[in-house]
Amino acid sequence: MNDIIKLVHGDGGKHTHELIESIFYKHFRNDLLINGIDAATFTVKQGRMAFTTDSFVVKPLFFKGGDIGKLAVYGTVNDLAVSGAKPLYLSTAFIIEEGFPLESLKRIVVSIGNACMQTGVKVVTGDTKVVEKGRGDGIFINTSGVGIIEDDFSIRSIEEGDRIIVTGGIGEHGTAIALDRYDIKIKGNFESDCAPLNKIVMKLKRFYPSIKIMKDPTRGGLATALNEIASLSGLGVCVDEECVPLRKEVKAANELLGLDPLYMACEGRLILVVSKEAADSLLEEIIKIEGCEEAKIIGSFVKEPYNMVYMKTFLGGKRILNMLEGEMLPRIC
Amino acid sequence: MNDIIKLVHGDGGKHTHELIESIFYKHFRNDLLINGIDAATFTVKQGRMAFTTDSFVVKPLFFKGGDIGKLAVYGTVNDLAVSGAKPLYLSTAFIIEEGFPLESLKRIVVSIGNACMQTGVKVVTGDTKVVEKGRGDGIFINTSGVGIIEDDFSIRSIEEGDRIIVTGGIGEHGTAIALDRYDIKIKGNFESDCAPLNKIVMKLKRFYPSIKIMKDPTRGGLATALNEIASLSGLGVCVDEECVPLRKEVKAANELLGLDPLYMACEGRLILVVSKEAADSLLEEIIKIEGCEEAKIIGSFVKEPYNMVYMKTFLGGKRILNMLEGEMLPRIC
Repeated sequence: MNDIIKLVHGDGGKHTHELIESIFYKHFRNDLLINGIDAATFTVKQGRMAFTTDSFVVKPLFFKGGDIGKLAVYGTVNDLAVSGAKPLYLSTAFIIEEGFPLESLKRIVVSIGNACMQTGVKVVTGDTKVVEKGRGDGIFINTSGVGIIEDDFSIRSIEEGDRIIVTGGIGEHGTAIALDRYDIKIKGNFESDCAPLNKIVMKLKRFYPSIKIMKDPTRGGLATALNEIASLSGLGVCVDEECVPLRKEVKAANELLGLDPLYMACEGRLILVVSKEAADSLLEEIIKIEGCEEAKIIGSFVKEPYNMVYMKTFLGGKRILNMLEGEMLPRIC
Repeated sequence: MNDIIKLVHGDGGKHTHELIESIFYKHFRNDLLINGIDAATFTVKQGRMAFTTDSFVVKPLFFKGGDIGKLAVYGTVNDLAVSGAKPLYLSTAFIIEEGFPLESLKRIVVSIGNACMQTGVKVVTGDTKVVEKGRGDGIFINTSGVGIIEDDFSIRSIEEGDRIIVTGGIGEHGTAIALDRYDIKIKGNFESDCAPLNKIVMKLKRFYPSIKIMKDPTRGGLATALNEIASLSGLGVCVDEECVPLRKEVKAANELLGLDPLYMACEGRLILVVSKEAADSLLEEIIKIEGCEEAKIIGSFVKEPYNMVYMKTFLGGKRILNMLEGEMLPRIC
């Protein structure tokens, strides 16, 4: 029974310290993370910073193409990256259910450590709480993060004619989660697109004045993210269905599941709003980046209908894409 | 059925946005918090910053002297304050169980808003997740926070003879939670000591070179916090039981509960390690501060026993105070 999490691991005493030493410090170790000190301190230069938070309750914890640990790092790294920031420091806070296998915790912590290494961020502060069996669901992870905005990216006013670029196939994370959760076996490669965006964003820096907004279409998928952008812009969005990158097998799986891939979460795609003039050369640059080969210009901003997103369908019709309204698939991140 | 949290409130779509608009934005509104943008951005001066995180799973959610919302703000504000930072910005991330009453959520959010106002911090970014009924426990809240270290406080080496000051009665938060959770009625005033420390710390700035470490004794209480400090110092700690501020009724309640107040959490007390020379004048200053009238010098650092904490008891004996080892009281914060 030593191989599971117990309530004493959350009491802040000896067992909590041992857990932190043997698992968290082992994999997160860096010069800013000090046991027994609750806040990390570091030096910053004068400038703009970004700060973000996300809790992760994804089910299952391990899925094709990723796991909750990787997702928790990428999710926060990506939120910083799309704000134009270079992600620097993360916090990780665990709410663990009594009885959770230590082996699974270790696997998740290793995954967090690897994802940090890959993205160049450090876990500098953390917290561990334990709740009684039946009062949680395995493990929930919060990651918050801070970064510096080195190249002075800021959200700029969107104008009529501005283009929308998506960096790759949509709905792949949500689809992978759905198939894994319900244990549905279909032929084909259904991996989450779960990936960090910070290096992609860094490569696009020289286009900044032409890039007006960056966003990662997570919960609620492409359609919801476009609605959020539309309401910030005060304009309408027209999407061309033909241009939306959507893998055939992802489309087929969603038909089978009765779900709409336009509303399925991505965890490694970037939406960019760019000036009409820069769109083609930016796209050319983006498709050279590893993982962005399928990038497409999928639509543009229009005067009417105001604050709405619609799609020109394959058949030549128009479909209004509202913000996600019904119940799609809970706990995808 | 419109008055409870549903799974759709966590899907990132229309219902999530409505919840955010109608509850979170309403009470957190400030110039840095923008709906639809995942990361907050702000300008900082060159200097040192602090960053911390805590998840709150306290049970019950509402207790004498506080609630989970207030606790979540103070907890993170206090972790920043004891690192010498002026708390500036908070993130709040909610994991809510399906079926949780909206009325309770509102009450908690109002409490967070008030605590922010009181401590001068802003909630600048947030997240909301919903888990199925039976997969959570009402509500869990993570707050992370950033602050600036204006007066260049830093942890300094502890020397033999350095004194330990505690700013008020110990164990009051843990005791209030225990009595409320088990619905035990005893005569007396059993309120949590839950309070912000940032203003207290600010008033002590001019003593900084003499203040070597500040710490808030939360989970694991005074005894565990002293063990953490002892292991950072490489010295031993000798505490004088006579000097430890402990309200009679708190002592009596813990006897009844079979718990040890030395290990019961405080949520509004500060432990200071100060140079021997400065201790008396610092104490004089501290007891003038509202809420710190009962502050005491409770002990000092000694060469032996190395890395350990012991207490001279009322009866003249010695009691070793180890780090909390057994199960005291889960979910006190």
